[in-house]
Amino acid sequence: MRLRNKPWAKDKIEQYPQYVVADPEAVKGNWGNAFAENQPLHIEIGTGKGRFITEMARVNPDINYVGIEFQQSVIVSALDRLIEAELPNVKLLNVNAADLKSFFANGEVERIYLNFSDPWPKIRHHKRRLTYKTFLSLYEGIMPKNGEIHLKTDNQGLFEYSLTSFSEYGMLLKFVSLDLHNSDFEGNIMTEYEEKFSKKGNRIYRCEVQYRKK
Amino acid sequence: MRLRNKPWAKDKIEQYPQYVVADPEAVKGNWGNAFAENQPLHIEIGTGKGRFITEMARVNPDINYVGIEFQQSVIVSALDRLIEAELPNVKLLNVNAADLKSFFANGEVERIYLNFSDPWPKIRHHKRRLTYKTFLSLYEGIMPKNGEIHLKTDNQGLFEYSLTSFSEYGMLLKFVSLDLHNSDFEGNIMTEYEEKFSKKGNRIYRCEVQYRKK
Ligand SMILES: C[S@@+](CC[C@H](N)C(=O)[O-])C[C@H]1O[C@@H](n2cnc3c(N)ncnc32)[C@H](O)[C@@H]1O
Ligand SMILES: C[S@@+](CC[C@H](N)C(=O)[O-])C[C@H]1O[C@@H](n2cnc3c(N)ncnc32)[C@H](O)[C@@H]1O
Repeated sequence: MRLRNKPWAKDKIEQYPQYVVADPEAVKGNWGNAFAENQPLHIEIGTGKGRFITEMARVNPDINYVGIEFQQSVIVSALDRLIEAELPNVKLLNVNAADLKSFFANGEVERIYLNFSDPWPKIRHHKRRLTYKTFLSLYEGIMPKNGEIHLKTDNQGLFEYSLTSFSEYGMLLKFVSLDLHNSDFEGNIMTEYEEKFSKKGNRIYRCEVQYRKK
Repeated sequence: MRLRNKPWAKDKIEQYPQYVVADPEAVKGNWGNAFAENQPLHIEIGTGKGRFITEMARVNPDINYVGIEFQQSVIVSALDRLIEAELPNVKLLNVNAADLKSFFANGEVERIYLNFSDPWPKIRHHKRRLTYKTFLSLYEGIMPKNGEIHLKTDNQGLFEYSLTSFSEYGMLLKFVSLDLHNSDFEGNIMTEYEEKFSKKGNRIYRCEVQYRKK
């Protein structure tokens, strides 16, 4: 996502601690009580401008959502959506996903969404991909035994890589679509990138994988 | 594959027992000695007109190949290729793959190729797919612990299904290409169907999976 200099972003984020959690370390292990209802928690990593997480929260009132985005200049757009939407079951975290374990306790996150994650096409950068084995291990540490990752992307290389990475990690591939927008999948909620790339004619890939007992 | 009535096919097949094995039950457990060289055995299920298996045998002289095709009217075209090619390391079997265990001993087949297998799109026919779990179990019974299946198809539904079926069976996805003909995969050998469908503009999907210790 292109970085725009938004010097006012930090101030704005601090003004809305009910939407952008101010001290996430303090909430670790206690996310159920940070929301209006104590119910299952799903997170999105790399939330961008927040369309997906906001719509998911609207459509699924019985799930709590946390959108994680480390760029201040981007997360403010997601914040604008939340201010507008006034939903009780969605919050944002302005942190780096590499530090997830500081913010979520073992077993606390039932599902992780990865939407249009940065593709990092160069082989020497593959370890930065959010589906690299070190990330899969990180996620496993905050999820229950049968936790799920749901991934969407238009990037063929990232998708191929992720399928093999999940498999090598021992995860179960429960669902895969190689052309989501021409499939009978119902209730898809588009992300900003999804709209942009599908308009260009790119295929959208999607899969659901699950951790297995080892 | 369209069935043409070829009353002479049976006679022709019987004329060439060096290419279409006449009594495969008798060779079970002893395939190494049925060829000029005792070397690893790879088989293709649903060989069709035999272009793939013949070219593979030409390019890989240190592997023995067996192409399995249950339609006489189709396997005769593969036989014509073998007569022409005069290769010591490839044979055909005019049998039904459902009976594989009658022809191959436990651990005897190191790799199985599935190329453009019949897609059986209707849900009630999925159990006929050559990647349905009963087939995966059948194959496992004739392969070593780390045996591999290499699959190509242009059929999106069959490919999606196969990826999840392999995963549910506990197999490892080692390689996947979602657009083989626009990838850097080297040394691809085209099948008859592959040529036909890629000319139509269809994408070709390919994967390699491996059995894992359970
Ligand atoms: C390509 S954008 C996709 C945005 C959105 N998911 C969509 O589909 O429209 C990827 C986003 O992930 C964020 N991101 C990448 N790595 C991250 C990390 N380690 N922690 C938090 N956010 C990250 C980037 O800042 C960027 O906004
Ligand atoms: C769609 S064709 C593909 C032929 C060839 N592999 C290609 O790519 O050009 C599938 C072939 O598999 C054969 N076949 C299907 N099920 C089979 C089985 N159970 N045993 C042996 N052959 C089978 C069919 O007769 C047909 O020739």
